[in-house]
Amino acid sequence: MFKNTLVPFSSSSFRLTTFLSSAPPLLGIPASSAIFERASICRRNKSELSPGIGTRVTGPSKLPRVHNKSTSSAAIVPAQFLPSPSQLLSQTSKHSYATMSSDTVGKTITCKAAVAWEAGKDLSIEDIEVEAPKAGEVRIQIYYTGVCHTDAYTLSGKDPEGAFPIVLGHEGAGIVESVGEGVTNVKAGDNVVALYTPECKECKFCKSGKTNLCGKIRATQGKGVMPDGTSRFKCKGKDLLHFMGTSTFSQYTVVADISVVKITDKAPMDRTCLLGCGITTGYGAAVITAGKGGVEKGSNVAVFGAGCVGLSVIQGCVKNGSSKIIVVDVNNSKKEWAEKFGATDFVNPMELKDQTIQEKLIEMTDGGCDYTFDCTGNVHVMRSALEACHKGWGESIVIGVAAAGQEISTRPFQLVTGRVWKGCAFGGVKGRSQLPDLVDDYLNGKLKVDEFITHRQPLDKINAAFQDMKAGDCIRCVVNMRE
Amino acid sequence: MFKNTLVPFSSSSFRLTTFLSSAPPLLGIPASSAIFERASICRRNKSELSPGIGTRVTGPSKLPRVHNKSTSSAAIVPAQFLPSPSQLLSQTSKHSYATMSSDTVGKTITCKAAVAWEAGKDLSIEDIEVEAPKAGEVRIQIYYTGVCHTDAYTLSGKDPEGAFPIVLGHEGAGIVESVGEGVTNVKAGDNVVALYTPECKECKFCKSGKTNLCGKIRATQGKGVMPDGTSRFKCKGKDLLHFMGTSTFSQYTVVADISVVKITDKAPMDRTCLLGCGITTGYGAAVITAGKGGVEKGSNVAVFGAGCVGLSVIQGCVKNGSSKIIVVDVNNSKKEWAEKFGATDFVNPMELKDQTIQEKLIEMTDGGCDYTFDCTGNVHVMRSALEACHKGWGESIVIGVAAAGQEISTRPFQLVTGRVWKGCAFGGVKGRSQLPDLVDDYLNGKLKVDEFITHRQPLDKINAAFQDMKAGDCIRCVVNMRE
Repeated sequence: MFKNTLVPFSSSSFRLTTFLSSAPPLLGIPASSAIFERASICRRNKSELSPGIGTRVTGPSKLPRVHNKSTSSAAIVPAQFLPSPSQLLSQTSKHSYATMSSDTVGKTITCKAAVAWEAGKDLSIEDIEVEAPKAGEVRIQIYYTGVCHTDAYTLSGKDPEGAFPIVLGHEGAGIVESVGEGVTNVKAGDNVVALYTPECKECKFCKSGKTNLCGKIRATQGKGVMPDGTSRFKCKGKDLLHFMGTSTFSQYTVVADISVVKITDKAPMDRTCLLGCGITTGYGAAVITAGKGGVEKGSNVAVFGAGCVGLSVIQGCVKNGSSKIIVVDVNNSKKEWAEKFGATDFVNPMELKDQTIQEKLIEMTDGGCDYTFDCTGNVHVMRSALEACHKGWGESIVIGVAAAGQEISTRPFQLVTGRVWKGCAFGGVKGRSQLPDLVDDYLNGKLKVDEFITHRQPLDKINAAFQDMKAGDCIRCVVNMRE
Repeated sequence: MFKNTLVPFSSSSFRLTTFLSSAPPLLGIPASSAIFERASICRRNKSELSPGIGTRVTGPSKLPRVHNKSTSSAAIVPAQFLPSPSQLLSQTSKHSYATMSSDTVGKTITCKAAVAWEAGKDLSIEDIEVEAPKAGEVRIQIYYTGVCHTDAYTLSGKDPEGAFPIVLGHEGAGIVESVGEGVTNVKAGDNVVALYTPECKECKFCKSGKTNLCGKIRATQGKGVMPDGTSRFKCKGKDLLHFMGTSTFSQYTVVADISVVKITDKAPMDRTCLLGCGITTGYGAAVITAGKGGVEKGSNVAVFGAGCVGLSVIQGCVKNGSSKIIVVDVNNSKKEWAEKFGATDFVNPMELKDQTIQEKLIEMTDGGCDYTFDCTGNVHVMRSALEACHKGWGESIVIGVAAAGQEISTRPFQLVTGRVWKGCAFGGVKGRSQLPDLVDDYLNGKLKVDEFITHRQPLDKINAAFQDMKAGDCIRCVVNMRE
């Protein structure tokens, strides 16, 4: 028997609370503004789960020894001190985080992970065993992961489809440690981003040319297991469930090969991890889902909610040449954020007198918006967003995901007179086909990513990252999985 | 002073109950199937009214004498004995209904009309005074009008925007009697169809290239008056309101020049009147509104409700090459109707066991429909239609208009996973630009129209036409305005 060696782990942390040096005091969302509470954005794919789990997972009987991957974590510095994308591009050598070794191949790795043992409790940092990838699977050393409202929602126990124990996390970047039989799209050493919206390129969905949703592993991903119906995670003798096909809250994770995309090694992974969910979701909604392939030049748009997703929608609208980009948020501190990303107007609906937000927006746009985006997950906001659209052609795109059981409503007359209600998951972006281009856009200075990082935490402070996220001053908290 | 002479009027009637010679006994919609009650289809434009009327109308002080237009009404014969479109095309002479005379020009005409004096009461055949058209207006001698659920809805008093007394009717064809100053798009003697969805070709809507809704006279049309804020109708000393900018339940009506389209005189008006609403609405929804310009070849579609509009949707889907056209109706007698128009399948949702209609449709189409159409006006059906769509791309088009105050609902997850909820008025068809092409399609045998006419009535039996419409065996009842 080999002795298990754990990947090291430190407790340092860094919070970028000074990121917006000129910003007014950042406020949390007031309790009275529950209608604007930002809800889970990416639970959409999780919500397709059938309730219950029902699959018994059998772990390996032996634990092979593994080596530590590396203890040299990248220095954590505020975003404004990080090398710019162009500086990164000017580097001639590979951007190296760690040296890959081949002696873990085919073996179970024991590493640290944040385990959700039960609903409503903090995550627990544990040593878990991560089995080697089977055929068609990829084992990734996760370097950085974002923390998203979806993770918090499932952890809260409010998600009726949530099951425990589980390794949460779905916004992660890392390096491929090894691949299972038959995997050809990535290889050991590749820089990758995990994809909770996979892309098989073979199923009815992928071939349709109409959607980024992929049906190939939907059923098993929904049940929290790998495509063969079993788990690769074990802790204290118990099998742990996978989450959204990614489980990035572990130093090593195993995913299906269609749930991972290789990206350039020139892009720092503490930034690229955010392309695994929030930024891509908002940006894609504006440049892919809206209209017939993105909002048009000169369009008037409204973005409800100026968190990570909403700010990314703004970026997409700016890129496509929208004339008026109105941001709606109950938190006035978001005004400066919105303007930094290119918004032309800001409205706090709590400050309107004798006027609904839809009336205000219709007034501001001479008849209504060409496009509106809900980035809140609040069903009342979704209605306002639809009804703020221009008669005849206005489209409202639902991005935020509502809490279980909640429903959207409107008068059908809103649709009969030409408004369109649609939505998207992961911004309509096909992860394997299109994410590398987004990384390139970032490196070429065409896509803001650094600016989203307001907070940082090491893995052992991941519960603090959840607290950060719930504060009004946080856009994204990035967790260093190797600290 | 001239003496007023009334347009003559007879009491003959004819019902085409033998139209479907091989059909099973035609049934009314059962009381238990309230969810499928066909509601108003075209009230959408009326629903844009501001509540209340508020405009005081002043009538002319003098009534000039007018001549009878003609007493030679076209013979009323069952549809199967009518000349076919190709036979009509082979006629070398103009299809003549009446001889126009110019001695009514500029004068008030007194004629028969069905007046709705108050909600919930039968229409009353009255002699009304129809003022000469003012600048930008057109006076039409109405030859035939359809009777539509919208007329019945407003007459019922359930429409909160309904106002009385009023001349209802919006599905009419006739011949221009005279035009007001500055009118250039039609002239006296032109065969025309009245348009409750006008087309000015100048407003923001018309120029957008994205909608058939026109904003130019919306406000006054909604208030039941002409664009100058006054009425052209008077009866027993009282002003009567206009309805949907058309008021085709009068032997003469006055409309804005943008609310009328010239069509070929080769097409019989007892058929073309139906292009003024129901047929165009359904057909346009399938070939214009759905998708990016109509349903695609090979698509799977479901049509909820097989009345005039639903059958027209089928026609559009057949034209565009849909593979599977499933008709959903609680009235089994509609099966044969649906198949006659090209449906491939028929489902009576009342006969499903342990399965919702959306589950049934998803099963029948391997994942859901590419397009669904609600032609019922029932908000529960609208939800089923949306949820029967295929994940990732399915679109549901709301055509039916719900009763006042009713709302549609669904889980936003339906949209986030790629379904699209949209709708249309008048099928997305631009009346002045596109209706003449539909008439040509009819004459060339590419568009069924004759087949819709199951009942006929003369003007003085118009209340019987309303009763016909409410029976399950009626697709369309055409009223001869000159009998």
